[in-house]
Amino acid sequence: MKILIKIAYNGANYCGWQVQKNGISVQECICKAAKAVYCEDVAVTGCSRTDSGVHAKEYFCTLQTSASAPVIPEKQLPFALNRHLPYDITVFSAAKADDGFHARYDVKEKTYEYVFDNGEQRDPFLLGRAWHIPRRLDEKVMDEAAQSFVGTFDFRAFMASGSSVTDTVRTVSCAQVMREGTTVIFRVSANGFLYNMVRIMAGTLFGVSEGKIKPDDIQNIILGCDRRNAGPTAPPDGLYLVKVNYDF
Amino acid sequence: MKILIKIAYNGANYCGWQVQKNGISVQECICKAAKAVYCEDVAVTGCSRTDSGVHAKEYFCTLQTSASAPVIPEKQLPFALNRHLPYDITVFSAAKADDGFHARYDVKEKTYEYVFDNGEQRDPFLLGRAWHIPRRLDEKVMDEAAQSFVGTFDFRAFMASGSSVTDTVRTVSCAQVMREGTTVIFRVSANGFLYNMVRIMAGTLFGVSEGKIKPDDIQNIILGCDRRNAGPTAPPDGLYLVKVNYDF
Repeated sequence: MKILIKIAYNGANYCGWQVQKNGISVQECICKAAKAVYCEDVAVTGCSRTDSGVHAKEYFCTLQTSASAPVIPEKQLPFALNRHLPYDITVFSAAKADDGFHARYDVKEKTYEYVFDNGEQRDPFLLGRAWHIPRRLDEKVMDEAAQSFVGTFDFRAFMASGSSVTDTVRTVSCAQVMREGTTVIFRVSANGFLYNMVRIMAGTLFGVSEGKIKPDDIQNIILGCDRRNAGPTAPPDGLYLVKVNYDF
Repeated sequence: MKILIKIAYNGANYCGWQVQKNGISVQECICKAAKAVYCEDVAVTGCSRTDSGVHAKEYFCTLQTSASAPVIPEKQLPFALNRHLPYDITVFSAAKADDGFHARYDVKEKTYEYVFDNGEQRDPFLLGRAWHIPRRLDEKVMDEAAQSFVGTFDFRAFMASGSSVTDTVRTVSCAQVMREGTTVIFRVSANGFLYNMVRIMAGTLFGVSEGKIKPDDIQNIILGCDRRNAGPTAPPDGLYLVKVNYDF
């Protein structure tokens, strides 16, 4: 049977979601915990391929087991799995999923947040959790610029090279930039994201704040479909997957 | 000359503020950074002796240097010191202090927060930063109980053994317990705190939430002056020094 679990993780110590040769991945940890609980190899499918160092406050994945009935009641499964997981990965809930359900392909919308630590000096509590920009960011002009991301566009200019994706059209439903104390947060929702898309958007908004890119330029950067016109790729530390929506 | 600096630190990796033989202390890191900047041994005096694993969002200490005039302008000093500090300790500001000023003795009031992670499962972003209590805490009854801490009392019942302090009378000016999402925060201000006082208060409030101690009992626990009547000592992870007031 297929079980959908909701998890969260601090990605600082991981090489990303997906199993890699060069480091420990979140998927690997979930696989090991599931194997310990079910006493068999369990196929684990995630909702998104987050990069090395990227965090998730909400993330879904499915566990495919050979059993046809629940071995452990869904309500108890988080406790059972968490016993076998490191403390920076937590399972919050579990529910039975249809056999045809796919954790990644069935995602309707995802929301990411990118956190800038905008104090003159680094916040010691945001180590590995934000991009430190000592110079004061202009969150108003960044927010104005972010509005140009909203809509259905070919976002090729906001995709890192090395991606094999050919359909680069995505629909961004919401984008905003707000200040919370000494942090500035860029929040963006879309039906899907290209490789490094949010980090390139964040780097571009940083460029807007620095006066290197005008808010009005964003539209032309999108339409130009040329990665070189967009800003730098912001570091992974500041990126959080915060919301994943399915049709249920 | 004497310079007062404002710092913050994530205490998870330190054996506390004070130099110890059994681990790296925050004071030691500040001493080393100050020595690197001033090219001489600098006496560092802190505002409080925080325990191993305890955090500070606001902490003050003085640097006593042999120079009679500023070697580095106060505005530049945080940048200079931070270059020599690990990323979990940050200097935010610096100002000249009177020679007679003492970072600890001259404190008028300090405020601590104790953070409970009250989700059924651990929050992976609060690892080393909160006390995880899976069962739902009753923040209302905890807040009611906390009001009994307010006033001038002999707080001997809330002092860990091993302290050499003889005057155990302190004035608590404010105490409150509030819920913020899945965390519950106990905030307390006083003119001074005994050894482990906030952690024993937090453990006692946990006992109140669990129904082991009645809110009305707190007053008698204080008046009884017997440590055995108070609750357990809460772990250091959840404790933050958040505010230090001087008369300026």
